[in-house]
Amino acid sequence: MASATASVAEVCSAAKSASRTLARADSALRDAALRAIAQSLTERSGEILAANELDMQAGAEADIGSALLDRLLLDERRLEAIAQAVREIVALPDPVGEVIDGHRLPNGLDVRRVRVPLGVVAVVYEARPNVTIDATALCLKSGNAIVLRGSSTAAHSNAALARVAADAVASCGLPESCVSLVAGGGREELAELATARESVDLIIPRGGEGLKDALQAVATVPVIYAASGNCHVFVDASADLGMAEAIAINAKTQRPGVCNAAETLLVHERCAGELLPRLLPLLEHAGVQLRGDERTRALAGPEAHVEPATESDWATEYLDLVLAVRVVPSVEDAIEHIGRYGSGHSEAIVTADARSARAFQLGVDAACVYVNASTRFTDGGEFGMGAEIGNSTQKLHARGPIGLRELCTFKYLVEGDGQVRS
Amino acid sequence: MASATASVAEVCSAAKSASRTLARADSALRDAALRAIAQSLTERSGEILAANELDMQAGAEADIGSALLDRLLLDERRLEAIAQAVREIVALPDPVGEVIDGHRLPNGLDVRRVRVPLGVVAVVYEARPNVTIDATALCLKSGNAIVLRGSSTAAHSNAALARVAADAVASCGLPESCVSLVAGGGREELAELATARESVDLIIPRGGEGLKDALQAVATVPVIYAASGNCHVFVDASADLGMAEAIAINAKTQRPGVCNAAETLLVHERCAGELLPRLLPLLEHAGVQLRGDERTRALAGPEAHVEPATESDWATEYLDLVLAVRVVPSVEDAIEHIGRYGSGHSEAIVTADARSARAFQLGVDAACVYVNASTRFTDGGEFGMGAEIGNSTQKLHARGPIGLRELCTFKYLVEGDGQVRS
Repeated sequence: MASATASVAEVCSAAKSASRTLARADSALRDAALRAIAQSLTERSGEILAANELDMQAGAEADIGSALLDRLLLDERRLEAIAQAVREIVALPDPVGEVIDGHRLPNGLDVRRVRVPLGVVAVVYEARPNVTIDATALCLKSGNAIVLRGSSTAAHSNAALARVAADAVASCGLPESCVSLVAGGGREELAELATARESVDLIIPRGGEGLKDALQAVATVPVIYAASGNCHVFVDASADLGMAEAIAINAKTQRPGVCNAAETLLVHERCAGELLPRLLPLLEHAGVQLRGDERTRALAGPEAHVEPATESDWATEYLDLVLAVRVVPSVEDAIEHIGRYGSGHSEAIVTADARSARAFQLGVDAACVYVNASTRFTDGGEFGMGAEIGNSTQKLHARGPIGLRELCTFKYLVEGDGQVRS
Repeated sequence: MASATASVAEVCSAAKSASRTLARADSALRDAALRAIAQSLTERSGEILAANELDMQAGAEADIGSALLDRLLLDERRLEAIAQAVREIVALPDPVGEVIDGHRLPNGLDVRRVRVPLGVVAVVYEARPNVTIDATALCLKSGNAIVLRGSSTAAHSNAALARVAADAVASCGLPESCVSLVAGGGREELAELATARESVDLIIPRGGEGLKDALQAVATVPVIYAASGNCHVFVDASADLGMAEAIAINAKTQRPGVCNAAETLLVHERCAGELLPRLLPLLEHAGVQLRGDERTRALAGPEAHVEPATESDWATEYLDLVLAVRVVPSVEDAIEHIGRYGSGHSEAIVTADARSARAFQLGVDAACVYVNASTRFTDGGEFGMGAEIGNSTQKLHARGPIGLRELCTFKYLVEGDGQVRS
């Protein structure tokens, strides 16, 4: 790993050089490096936990709050969970070398499009030290060198974890600069990283809107922004109402703080009178605060308290036990509402009507469009892609879960026997 | 088409709205619109050529030079060629709706990844009015609305062509805002277009480095930059020297002004003594100016004049009949030279040795890596993708030829029967 005094430019340049070796390394070697990381996390837990203790003390002194302290905390159990996650990534199929498509041209040239690593991926993240290892494992598995830039709150923990990972990689004969950590968490370092076009191929931020805005202002390196999700469940006129209830409750309450949780429930006017008086009290009993349009409030009944929804409710990703509810006259109106307020993440329709399902699938412009299932399934693990490094609502390169495949690019390999162009 | 007085924001917003209709239009309807455009180019040639005459007069008065005037000129024959290019795009397979992959999850959910249009594509271009129609046809075929921003030199021609295209699209029942032209060629309009994140999904610049720099400074909308190509031909020790000659001459001279032409010839030292005294005079007779390292110059013989190459020659995309030549000790040195100076476009090895071929394919990080073929084949048409809108040396989303597939994104369609996450 680059020394703590290396500049951002030096770190990135060393990572670029390491990435060339890594891109040619067989998956057996990359997997061995990952297994060595998993093993070292256990063997060197003492030094990792000692470093974490320094961050925990500093955090307590700085009064960062119990939630943040809990995110920061490492212990033997959590380290073992991180190591286990690495072993699960080892078990995933290697994306590198996969032939995406190919054919023979009329002039006899054989063209194959083959998946290859991007090169150097920079991951910029906040607080949670486990990201240091999770992101490293995904990048190494996909043949990429990684440059990590964590938050100052977790500086000691991240440095210890990155050190352990780099040593483990080096012990397998790969360059230690396959894994490096940018020292210094300031905005200048971020700007330097975000403009290192010669050496960094992609930046993935994992953090809040402040980090995204800071990157957007300066980045010339390509960035895939992890998604915010203003997700909807639309209950069509023909829906099985039991299914609608189960999906709405699951999408809102199963884990409200994540991007694929539902934020707005849209209900077709033809079933609203039957559904809402049943569903709204269930949601409220599950701890959900409700905000509704006038028709929803009129239908709520005495058992559910529904605040009036304002324009901003339709546009808000609550990430909490709050749900906006609106009655709409048709599936087309639901599609239009989603087009206007949605963030293009995950959208669900509950319907028994094939025409409505098809209209929704065609008309909704989002990474994941569900028919009769909860929005909560948008996840690399759930989709069978293995671990993910985030979810994308961008349309270029990666849309939806960002897994190993999305951490790769491709190249065309063309083979001939002397063909020239005439 | 939006009126000439509409603001950039109004044009983009109307395009976004039109794109939603277009995304749901069957390919039969989109193809009908393209055929209507082709027909209108012939039927309304009078008004197009009259508009072009205004640009030609203004260009002559402004003394823009004969090369630029020739690029600007339209006549019946050129209009017919443009119409024919549209008909060829009609004949390409529709990328929209293609199922990229799919599978059933353990919980019974069916997941399909389906290609869908990006939405609104903005094409920013210089001079050539034919781009107005070429780009429009590619965008409509791939289900995207297009916002055109041409240069002021071709303002009348572009307006007439865009008007004809928008009318033809409207005559088929699609919104005329599927095709629009931003009036005003100033830097403010460019900046407004390049930051219209709400409505523009992708910008493709087709122009020189000045345009790229201007976009890079302001763009927050994703941009795919058309490539510059500093391409190499490496002749390995084992190469068939006749094949090496043919490929080197083709890659350099067949069309030197394009991005997939070779700019540097690398020759293994074990065949340089036999190859260079034969090949260099042939290149010189073909009009190529040669710049070589010391070993090349020593081997050039009396029949070829080779200027000393400087460091900047290795990094230069001449786009002209100039070739840098260097003798290298090994395939690894060739790979390293290409890694250092190449632009990641198209790189070729000429070799009879399977190990060298494989090392080159694995070690060279470029959009297209050739074994025993000319770099000149990097082209959507040659690759069987149909027309292209440019070539990308980026690694994200599109690498190599940007065809219909690259003008699309995808979405995950997930179908279930009530699945919720536990």
